[in-house]
Amino acid sequence: MMNTLYLPELREMLAADDRPGLREFCTALHAARVVEFMEGLAPLEVWTVLRASDRSTCAEVFGFLPEKTQIEILESGDSRTLSQLIADMPADDRVDLLNEVEPTIVKQLLPLVPVEERRDILRLQSYPEGTAGAVMTTEVAKLPASLNVGTALEELGRQATDLETIYYIYIVDEKDHLQGTVSARQLVTRLGKPETPLSEIMERNLVTVQANDDQEVVAKKVADYDFLAIPVVDDEQRLAGIVTYDDVIDVLREEAEEDAYLAAAVEPLQAGYLQTSLIVLTWKRGFWLFTLFIAALLTAFALKSYQQVIDQVGWLVFFIPLIMSSGGNSGGQSATLVIRALSNKDIGLSDARRVLARELLMGLFLGSALSVVGYVVGWLMLPAPPTGPTPVELLTIPITLLVVVLFGSLCGAGLPLLFRRLGVDEALMSTPFVTVLIDIGGILIYMMVAMKMIDGLIRTAGPALTL
Amino acid sequence: MMNTLYLPELREMLAADDRPGLREFCTALHAARVVEFMEGLAPLEVWTVLRASDRSTCAEVFGFLPEKTQIEILESGDSRTLSQLIADMPADDRVDLLNEVEPTIVKQLLPLVPVEERRDILRLQSYPEGTAGAVMTTEVAKLPASLNVGTALEELGRQATDLETIYYIYIVDEKDHLQGTVSARQLVTRLGKPETPLSEIMERNLVTVQANDDQEVVAKKVADYDFLAIPVVDDEQRLAGIVTYDDVIDVLREEAEEDAYLAAAVEPLQAGYLQTSLIVLTWKRGFWLFTLFIAALLTAFALKSYQQVIDQVGWLVFFIPLIMSSGGNSGGQSATLVIRALSNKDIGLSDARRVLARELLMGLFLGSALSVVGYVVGWLMLPAPPTGPTPVELLTIPITLLVVVLFGSLCGAGLPLLFRRLGVDEALMSTPFVTVLIDIGGILIYMMVAMKMIDGLIRTAGPALTL
Repeated sequence: MMNTLYLPELREMLAADDRPGLREFCTALHAARVVEFMEGLAPLEVWTVLRASDRSTCAEVFGFLPEKTQIEILESGDSRTLSQLIADMPADDRVDLLNEVEPTIVKQLLPLVPVEERRDILRLQSYPEGTAGAVMTTEVAKLPASLNVGTALEELGRQATDLETIYYIYIVDEKDHLQGTVSARQLVTRLGKPETPLSEIMERNLVTVQANDDQEVVAKKVADYDFLAIPVVDDEQRLAGIVTYDDVIDVLREEAEEDAYLAAAVEPLQAGYLQTSLIVLTWKRGFWLFTLFIAALLTAFALKSYQQVIDQVGWLVFFIPLIMSSGGNSGGQSATLVIRALSNKDIGLSDARRVLARELLMGLFLGSALSVVGYVVGWLMLPAPPTGPTPVELLTIPITLLVVVLFGSLCGAGLPLLFRRLGVDEALMSTPFVTVLIDIGGILIYMMVAMKMIDGLIRTAGPALTL
Repeated sequence: MMNTLYLPELREMLAADDRPGLREFCTALHAARVVEFMEGLAPLEVWTVLRASDRSTCAEVFGFLPEKTQIEILESGDSRTLSQLIADMPADDRVDLLNEVEPTIVKQLLPLVPVEERRDILRLQSYPEGTAGAVMTTEVAKLPASLNVGTALEELGRQATDLETIYYIYIVDEKDHLQGTVSARQLVTRLGKPETPLSEIMERNLVTVQANDDQEVVAKKVADYDFLAIPVVDDEQRLAGIVTYDDVIDVLREEAEEDAYLAAAVEPLQAGYLQTSLIVLTWKRGFWLFTLFIAALLTAFALKSYQQVIDQVGWLVFFIPLIMSSGGNSGGQSATLVIRALSNKDIGLSDARRVLARELLMGLFLGSALSVVGYVVGWLMLPAPPTGPTPVELLTIPITLLVVVLFGSLCGAGLPLLFRRLGVDEALMSTPFVTVLIDIGGILIYMMVAMKMIDGLIRTAGPALTL
């Protein structure tokens, strides 16, 4: 999916070392589009294009490159220009990037980065991945409460080019304790009264997050409050940085990806499908596929323990897959409904009883509907007695379907609640896991119902699993 | 999950009609928190609290209420105050809300809304749901190119309170044709040179969307470009409105929810789990559950057509669930990987061959690993010949596992690609559908391998399904 419109022109300019031409290319379009148009170039060619432009454009366009290209550029040598680039990058992005680059390269580059940026990098690197500290930026508009609207705007104008966002201004005391916020909108609407002190207009009821808070919690807060940015404070309410809406959008996209992979029992990928090596991909699938396989082996043992039943009533076998998939599908539906509701805080643990009651009712409705169809199909498909089942014996199918759908719904809803109760992330309780448990339960239910409903069955194995 | 901290005080103030107290409650905290604290109140009580505060606070807090409460309040009568509230709400939110309210109520309310807002509502209502036009707001900072930095800031200060965002200013000609954008940041950094004309600093390379574009496309664009807002234009490049980052965050969350539900074959919910009635919930699950059930019925017919094989070799039955779940799980994994990669534009249709080659290799690795375990377990579990299978006959299990995992991976990867090719949303190709297809295929594969591997099997039914 490449945009090759400008590629020949770009290659020509590169060959001719046409720096003014390359510079114009970089500035003529939005940085994200510049990157799109360079998609066919090798990382080092991209770097040659970028170096032709001014420092701020170079850093801006670089920020939109795919991570893999960024890493290859950083690992290409050229330490002087690259350390400049690092100094010009947004504080949060450069730390994320440096964490992915070869440590030996980082050791070469860091000493060349200006001391202030270098200290900032080392501090941000100390926060664990996935926390507010790791996604925040330290480039914040901090002003003292003693300023007024006029002087604040002037000061903001001076700082603006270095800041990630100027749309919230954070009011701090001399020890960086956060005291309030003022929005650029408040300043602009008071342009006519420049002498208004900030302390008079600032918002003192602050919603903040801690540097160690999970990024998902931060994203949810920003989204719920419709914030442009949220301040991150340390244990002593000192302003450590801010998390901005664009990082929140990234976190939300990342988490949605992760949930989608986990729901199919795949370890989340770090890179794109084609960028991930086959070995990594196989491992990320294989681990869970293998675990599920081991669990599914129990179904074989369960069926074996009922060998005598199956041998006597051959038609029971035909419906094994149908019964298992009905239980598994309804269980997967319930699990998804409850996992989504828990994660959206629609329900909490205190609603467990109500949730299970609803699932019981839904299981009854759905199970009954499937039962009717199952009975009719069984009746049409199987021969009449004495070869086939009597109408009463055939009730095994609808009764099992009803019980299995009920069992599936209750398991699907109950297991995520149990996980939440135990303090384990319920998203791990993915559909395939619910399904494999319901498969095993489904077989036991089927065989037990069959033994009740079918006359003259000789039962020799115990009802429990005999491994 | 209620915050009942202030509930007794609120009820007391309501009983005593303590309007100053209620007003203070509404303004003391962020609107989202005010809503949290009112969670225990009935909709009409909430409305009494809100009415006590000033118009802008009232509209702001109202905006954070759950949709269900908003609708109940609007349907409560009190048309005069409610039409004021509607006029004060953000242009995009009020349209979404009015679309949910009883049409008779809307007919009562609309004539009381001031003419300008009323026209705006009618215009926005004409865009279909899920398009840029339906999520955009019309409250945009529009300025002519003839202003300079100083006069633009003044004009912005005047408009600011009515606008959803003031952080981008849109430069239009007298016929509303979009000519460029200027950011508030650009204005603030040029405070020292107020006579700079906007035409000199404005960005002319614009990234826009059309009013009929899908909201998902808009969200992806805003997220990819790190925009605060994106302009929406009509066919003639006239500025119709903007979509802001907070709407994008909402769209992204909504789409992630939808994908999660579809992946478990549940029709996406409009409201929370507990807010959705049991009948709606049962229908949203039942429709797909029933469809899947009908498809799964084919497994029963497939097994019946192989009745003779099963009757002769009883142990084959034990492994039916294991084989089906292995195929289904690997297929679900492949489907998820390919669906995510397609939706992230990691891969396109042109990569189909490469994707299938990778899935083939992964299927070989994973299938081989499961086969080894399957063979060992079968050997331990089943009796020795003549009662049980010979070592060669037992090869049925590992060979089937390998073929089924391969088949699952290729189907899981191929079906979403096929859907995309046919122009159908590949997210509809959810895991349960892939699974049911693989279940049917798995049984056919199992029986065919068994007939090849097991000596002396009398085969009477045809290899095709005999329905």
